Amino acid sequence: MNQQASFAALQERIAAVNDVLNATSLLTWDSRTMMPAGGAETRGHQIATLTRIARDLLLAPETEGALEEAERAVEGLPADAAERRMVEQTRHAVEHHRSVPASLIQERAALRTVAQSAWIEARSKSDFSIYEPHLAKTVALSRAYADCIGWSEHPYDAMVSIYEPGETAASLKSLFSKLREGLLPILDTARSRPQPRSDFLFRDFPEEGQRAFGLTLTEKLGYDLQRGRLDTTVHPFEVSFTRNDVRITTRYNRNYLPASMFGTAHEIGHGLYEQGVDPAYTRTTLATDLVGLYAVGGTSFGAHESQSRLWENHIVRSLTFWQRHFSDLQRHFPDQLGDVSAEEFYRAVTRVEPGLIRVEADELTYDFHIMLRADIECALMDGSLPVSELPGAWNAAMKRDLGLTVPNDAKGVLQDVHWSTGYIGSFPTYTIGNVMGAQVMETLRQQNPSLNASIGAGDYGVLAEELRTRIWQHGRRFMRDELLERETGRRLDPAPYLAYLQNKYAF
Amino acid sequence: MNQQASFAALQERIAAVNDVLNATSLLTWDSRTMMPAGGAETRGHQIATLTRIARDLLLAPETEGALEEAERAVEGLPADAAERRMVEQTRHAVEHHRSVPASLIQERAALRTVAQSAWIEARSKSDFSIYEPHLAKTVALSRAYADCIGWSEHPYDAMVSIYEPGETAASLKSLFSKLREGLLPILDTARSRPQPRSDFLFRDFPEEGQRAFGLTLTEKLGYDLQRGRLDTTVHPFEVSFTRNDVRITTRYNRNYLPASMFGTAHEIGHGLYEQGVDPAYTRTTLATDLVGLYAVGGTSFGAHESQSRLWENHIVRSLTFWQRHFSDLQRHFPDQLGDVSAEEFYRAVTRVEPGLIRVEADELTYDFHIMLRADIECALMDGSLPVSELPGAWNAAMKRDLGLTVPNDAKGVLQDVHWSTGYIGSFPTYTIGNVMGAQVMETLRQQNPSLNASIGAGDYGVLAEELRTRIWQHGRRFMRDELLERETGRRLDPAPYLAYLQNKYAF
Repeated sequence: MNQQASFAALQERIAAVNDVLNATSLLTWDSRTMMPAGGAETRGHQIATLTRIARDLLLAPETEGALEEAERAVEGLPADAAERRMVEQTRHAVEHHRSVPASLIQERAALRTVAQSAWIEARSKSDFSIYEPHLAKTVALSRAYADCIGWSEHPYDAMVSIYEPGETAASLKSLFSKLREGLLPILDTARSRPQPRSDFLFRDFPEEGQRAFGLTLTEKLGYDLQRGRLDTTVHPFEVSFTRNDVRITTRYNRNYLPASMFGTAHEIGHGLYEQGVDPAYTRTTLATDLVGLYAVGGTSFGAHESQSRLWENHIVRSLTFWQRHFSDLQRHFPDQLGDVSAEEFYRAVTRVEPGLIRVEADELTYDFHIMLRADIECALMDGSLPVSELPGAWNAAMKRDLGLTVPNDAKGVLQDVHWSTGYIGSFPTYTIGNVMGAQVMETLRQQNPSLNASIGAGDYGVLAEELRTRIWQHGRRFMRDELLERETGRRLDPAPYLAYLQNKYAF
Repeated sequence: MNQQASFAALQERIAAVNDVLNATSLLTWDSRTMMPAGGAETRGHQIATLTRIARDLLLAPETEGALEEAERAVEGLPADAAERRMVEQTRHAVEHHRSVPASLIQERAALRTVAQSAWIEARSKSDFSIYEPHLAKTVALSRAYADCIGWSEHPYDAMVSIYEPGETAASLKSLFSKLREGLLPILDTARSRPQPRSDFLFRDFPEEGQRAFGLTLTEKLGYDLQRGRLDTTVHPFEVSFTRNDVRITTRYNRNYLPASMFGTAHEIGHGLYEQGVDPAYTRTTLATDLVGLYAVGGTSFGAHESQSRLWENHIVRSLTFWQRHFSDLQRHFPDQLGDVSAEEFYRAVTRVEPGLIRVEADELTYDFHIMLRADIECALMDGSLPVSELPGAWNAAMKRDLGLTVPNDAKGVLQDVHWSTGYIGSFPTYTIGNVMGAQVMETLRQQNPSLNASIGAGDYGVLAEELRTRIWQHGRRFMRDELLERETGRRLDPAPYLAYLQNKYAF
């Protein structure tokens, strides 16, 4: 077999895996947007079967044969050649899945079902003890999982690497310490200011107008609805079925305008990344998370979040944006926003107020919620924090960082769904996204002299094209820090993020 | 292994096949209702991959092992025991797929893509010659397919059996001859009557009102929206993802009210069948067409069509229905239907007028369109009709049966999509559905004295419960004629259908 043919045989196997994972994603999207209640009964089976099939395809002897051929074929290529990366990533994923026995996967899946029910009950009764034994098992199985896939310094490294390859407990510790140090004085300054007016955000905003403005947002930011959709869900998300079908969802809170507006901007950011992946990578390893068994073009959870946070916060949650577009919003809501100025609106949507709930947090306190969770995950994984002591640790951290007293578990340790799905290790990627987004944005503003002017003029095409060529198009070819080094000259660095927040909130 | 365990191993394999096929159906549903244009590029790959995986799962050595165990386990059971039927149907499907080489499947799939493009071009230019070579290849590959799966009397038998097991070229010939003989005098009588008024059907009916009335139809007829959805498409269809998620679609023609109304009633009939399948059959062979590789609970295409036509024509297209419900419709369209009586409305929606286009045909001429196509399919399969002579044969049959001159191929031989998808043999099931629906309805009216009164009172629950217990709940356990013999005492028989049409159109 010649080089091209060897490579093609592997491609064909991976294309099938990608097809299956895209079908799995559609089952999920549908279950959260369109499926009638009755469908829930069997939808879980369908998703589980397809995920298992994807793994089986990856571990099949035919894939191993094609992979070995392909490994020989790409030997002479440059280290960062797309074909070589495809092969290497496939090998990494095959070894990953080979190391995890099917029995452990089944145990985790079985746990998920009962753990989620227990978590729902525990949260509704605000009683951690109902959920505690299931979380203990989640930690135990996560530890077993980490041991299977291997780690050298800390078992949390193994879990984090699934979402954010290259990141470790140690690297996070270092990042968080710099962030805490930098964030606290900014937060102090911001909190010393008088609170701006924000009453108008809570007026009556009919869904129709919110959706209409959301659609103008898609247009302004360049999200292509010929290759996408905007639907309504309880928990907003973005999902892609290859770059030409990338869907986003939002939720409309009739009495709180920012929820759908910034939520939509956030998901548009995710969507733009996926829509911008090189078409040549469609149905290849470079548009498939073969470790996480998820069809996605972004290179890591953190990199993905960097794009959503960049568009949400650096663009839409900016004074420039509202100076330019507030009149559009007023046209949709003339009665509700007639007595508000662009600057007042901006001040209201950037007001800082520490709170107990992560998903309601402002830009300046959000990372404290994340760091708290990541620290806890890390301590659960190495056993230094017994599950029974979790509420106490949580409440102490909330007091220490944000000065808040947690009144009950529902508003504390039970507020997030993440752990109940059986997964530990994804929380840090939210903060990584914030840091990376600012780092990229700073470089772009420095390197492209026309960028600020175009953004000021309400033209986001220059920014999108920069991001497309520098980040989106590469899909999963480069790792996150590799991308950052290529484009910003250095690995993940919190300085630009702190500078951005300082400038925005402690001016 | 004990009997139950042997059987469970097979069940688990089949459940996975069912999961995959349900995912395939979702890919299809989505592509016809929700998918943005960009998604088309890879959706075909996704569907092809999942279909191939379903076949591979069925032909895997593990399935064969489980099947052999299960065959021994069910040996002592009654011939029509559900478990025994599951095993026998699985064996039949395995042998079917084993007989067809993967190369032929690939050839047919490759042909489909080019044939559909050619058909679209041919139809738009009304030039059969553009499509002719592709149809010739479709016939050749269908013939090869028939030879693989085997036939004794006529190659068409093999093709028809995929959609309507037990039906053959000979049985269809006999059925059609009785139908032609019975239908022609009814048609003559109907055509000798003056045409009723129908101008009001073509007034302006905004989609909103049509959809609202469609939703009241789902309620009246008992289609459960907690286990279903009503969406909009170009070509209406029904699809199920197990009995608890059965979706229907319709299309709204703003200037022709009957299109969506009777279309919706038709799809509701399909949907009721699927929603009524025994819950115990979920994810089993008895809710999966393992030969056609399609997740469906109805036992054949014809049986399915019998239910849709029964609800569409015997219930909704009846004088009784409109006497009871026309005022509801008027409430949705007071301006458009204010000057119309229930009887006038009924006369208009049952007017008879031979036309060239199958999908626009009235109840009395529809079967001529089907018989024409089935006769042609049969003659193409045995070679007695060369593809080049197809337009001539088509036009001659239209002249002979309906007295119509076909002005061009677009309004003749090129009007249907079916053959361009590579499939031959499904057309007869439409007429079988009409015949079976009337046969079932006649028996129900005879055997249940309260049925007519309940229908007259606008209560369709009695009918639905009869159909559920006699037909729907059995899923694919019994073959169509077996069902008919159990419930009506005889196999498929056109007499009740002809009596129904006589009574309705030549009174």
